[in-house]
Amino acid sequence: MTPLLNETHDPALRSWVASANRSGTDFPIQNLPFAVFRRRGSAEAWRGGVAIGEQIVDLAAVAQAGVFSGDVAQAAQAGAQDKLNALMALGQGAWSALRLALSRALREGSPQQAALQACLVPQAEAEYDLPARIGDYTDFYTSVHHATNIGKQFRPDNPLLPNYKWVPIGYHGRASSIVVSGAAFHRPKGQLKKPDAEAPVLGASQRLDIELELGVFIGTGNALGDPIAITEAEPHVFGICLLNDWSARDIQGWEYQPLGPFLSKNFATSISPWVVTLEALAPYRTAFERPADDPQPLPYLDSPANRAAGAIDIQLEVGLQTQAMREAGLRDARISATSYRHAYWTVAQMVTHHTVNGCNLQPGDLLGTGTLSGPTLDQAAALIELTLGGKQPLQLPNGESRTFLLDGDAVVLRGWCEKAGAARIGFGECWGTVLPARP
Amino acid sequence: MTPLLNETHDPALRSWVASANRSGTDFPIQNLPFAVFRRRGSAEAWRGGVAIGEQIVDLAAVAQAGVFSGDVAQAAQAGAQDKLNALMALGQGAWSALRLALSRALREGSPQQAALQACLVPQAEAEYDLPARIGDYTDFYTSVHHATNIGKQFRPDNPLLPNYKWVPIGYHGRASSIVVSGAAFHRPKGQLKKPDAEAPVLGASQRLDIELELGVFIGTGNALGDPIAITEAEPHVFGICLLNDWSARDIQGWEYQPLGPFLSKNFATSISPWVVTLEALAPYRTAFERPADDPQPLPYLDSPANRAAGAIDIQLEVGLQTQAMREAGLRDARISATSYRHAYWTVAQMVTHHTVNGCNLQPGDLLGTGTLSGPTLDQAAALIELTLGGKQPLQLPNGESRTFLLDGDAVVLRGWCEKAGAARIGFGECWGTVLPARP
Repeated sequence: MTPLLNETHDPALRSWVASANRSGTDFPIQNLPFAVFRRRGSAEAWRGGVAIGEQIVDLAAVAQAGVFSGDVAQAAQAGAQDKLNALMALGQGAWSALRLALSRALREGSPQQAALQACLVPQAEAEYDLPARIGDYTDFYTSVHHATNIGKQFRPDNPLLPNYKWVPIGYHGRASSIVVSGAAFHRPKGQLKKPDAEAPVLGASQRLDIELELGVFIGTGNALGDPIAITEAEPHVFGICLLNDWSARDIQGWEYQPLGPFLSKNFATSISPWVVTLEALAPYRTAFERPADDPQPLPYLDSPANRAAGAIDIQLEVGLQTQAMREAGLRDARISATSYRHAYWTVAQMVTHHTVNGCNLQPGDLLGTGTLSGPTLDQAAALIELTLGGKQPLQLPNGESRTFLLDGDAVVLRGWCEKAGAARIGFGECWGTVLPARP
Repeated sequence: MTPLLNETHDPALRSWVASANRSGTDFPIQNLPFAVFRRRGSAEAWRGGVAIGEQIVDLAAVAQAGVFSGDVAQAAQAGAQDKLNALMALGQGAWSALRLALSRALREGSPQQAALQACLVPQAEAEYDLPARIGDYTDFYTSVHHATNIGKQFRPDNPLLPNYKWVPIGYHGRASSIVVSGAAFHRPKGQLKKPDAEAPVLGASQRLDIELELGVFIGTGNALGDPIAITEAEPHVFGICLLNDWSARDIQGWEYQPLGPFLSKNFATSISPWVVTLEALAPYRTAFERPADDPQPLPYLDSPANRAAGAIDIQLEVGLQTQAMREAGLRDARISATSYRHAYWTVAQMVTHHTVNGCNLQPGDLLGTGTLSGPTLDQAAALIELTLGGKQPLQLPNGESRTFLLDGDAVVLRGWCEKAGAARIGFGECWGTVLPARP
């Protein structure tokens, strides 16, 4: 199941794009993530691109210049469209062939350097759109730590429900309100009911929260009625991005029973522009382990490969930049740091569970992992956990404090993989800013 | 808010399409619902059509023949595409203009008879596709009777939750697995856990159910961040179809907490091909009333027009045809009959609540009303209610009985409006058949 390491992962590879060789870059030649972009403020067509250092390889320019031939040219052409769905639908073989060709063409000494140099656009000049037309968005709940932390607050007597360790819990989210990093959104209004009030009132949420998640883009889908076995799940996955599942806790607490969160979540969901392929993440695969006392997954959710390398060690952090910090020229303050390796269910388990009843996935569908809180409080990935339900404010380095988000607050998610003997693989950033509620 | 009655509603109108004048037809000249169709088994392009008696006005043929001019021609051209989204996006003015032009052209004595006659395709020769590309599908829960009946079974101590009478409860459903009437689907597999079992097992659902609902197609959408006021809600609605929200109750009972139904619902949702416009339903608008002891809706969900005519008296029924009945040449047996007028929340309230937080609706989005059970048991719109949770089997006229659906069972939904002084407005039928689970 784990994509094998191949020449594209060689940490010794260097690119003729100098910025790709700098220590700490998110986008070395071993990464090669995909986005949809154009020059900022231009009327250019949106098209796919691949990050290399501080540059973008413009796939429309690559296709037009005829840099590649055969299957690779076909993949570049599919990636030249205004959404990546066509490239996603081509399948793992095509993604992998394009990655290998780009890796070779971007290496120091490549004979294709001149041709590809003409296809570069600086990231500093780019703006981004959603990478795919997202047909359906499903949000899972794969952190047992988050489920326990939040369960304590919504159901103090019954924090972790009996199904949690058996069922990869998920629910359908809203596709239309998914926005790309950088978008600002208005604080949502909704029904709010104080515990001692007789009736709810309509008002702006006072408990606006973040949820640090990863987003998993489906590449190839399945026909309605045809489940995807766990041994076949990962080749259906195109790649992973950062995802902020903004949440209005007061609206959520009042509306969520019995059918789940709705208006508390669907006003905005932010994702990073860059989608890192599963192949790029291969060096960071790690064992998927269950605590000794926990039940093992049912057979349809279990495989030797999933046990051996189902998890991925992606470092994650959340930064908060208040309006006062921004005006003072201060950067964001880190309020949480965790890793995806703590997840209780893997990417393959999400795909297989989602389709076990015959539900059809389609190219460009997005699966959220759910809030990726780690085992300790400083690894909690939502303010409702970090502040113990708003009872213990976070102290920020400039003297401000926060329980939930205030107007003008900007939140940034960052993700990266790093270890000795492998190239750093970064996800870039996912930003979003809270605007005041509409009058 | 209520579309005014106009010349298209005149019950005295007769069409030169003779079958449209027959008593009991679903599709008289006062209806004119939309679908996407082609000749069955052909390789023709899918295109929009309008039902008239036993015929379909082929909008692609209408557009090509240049039967209409100006705005009406533009609307027909939009309706000639393989999905109705473009027509939906044109807005109420365009839908209404096309309706008026078709009404006049289809009347006895119309000078356009010859031109339009050449654009007719018999329904008997047609097959249907989904009427729209459904970006997002939301399912509401607008029958207080259903919520109470089902609440008793899932939460005997707490059937109707405290939020029900304040919040139009809804959740996001799966768009990819919505299928058009006539589709068969495999019985879903999923995690099943008996109350006394220590662990769940993977198996085929043994409690496969129906839910009789209506589907509301959004026409024009709203920008992210811009709520739709209740006084402006109805012009955003294109029309209404029949919807069967197939549900696996055993999967649902085990998975649904805390985030709501997921795999118990997303294996298939069937809708009727014909979408009846709100304008066609104008004669059947009726007062939206709350029981005297119930709270009035919050101001954002209230308006004089919604109170005066927010409800719609659509008669609904469910038929079950077992395999044995089919093989014996028996038609389906009616197992439930109710009306949409019993709903606790109106179409306008669903639209306004959905967007009060700024969530954006888009042309072609689908809102389900939720299971439309009426106040008495024979008006219950799901087997779990009709059979008291499977404890009291339904007796069928051929001697068979059912608690939940068996393989080979076909279910049909029907809907129509009828009263003295107005033309009957029908929705056609919505069929679906249960195939055995995949091995």
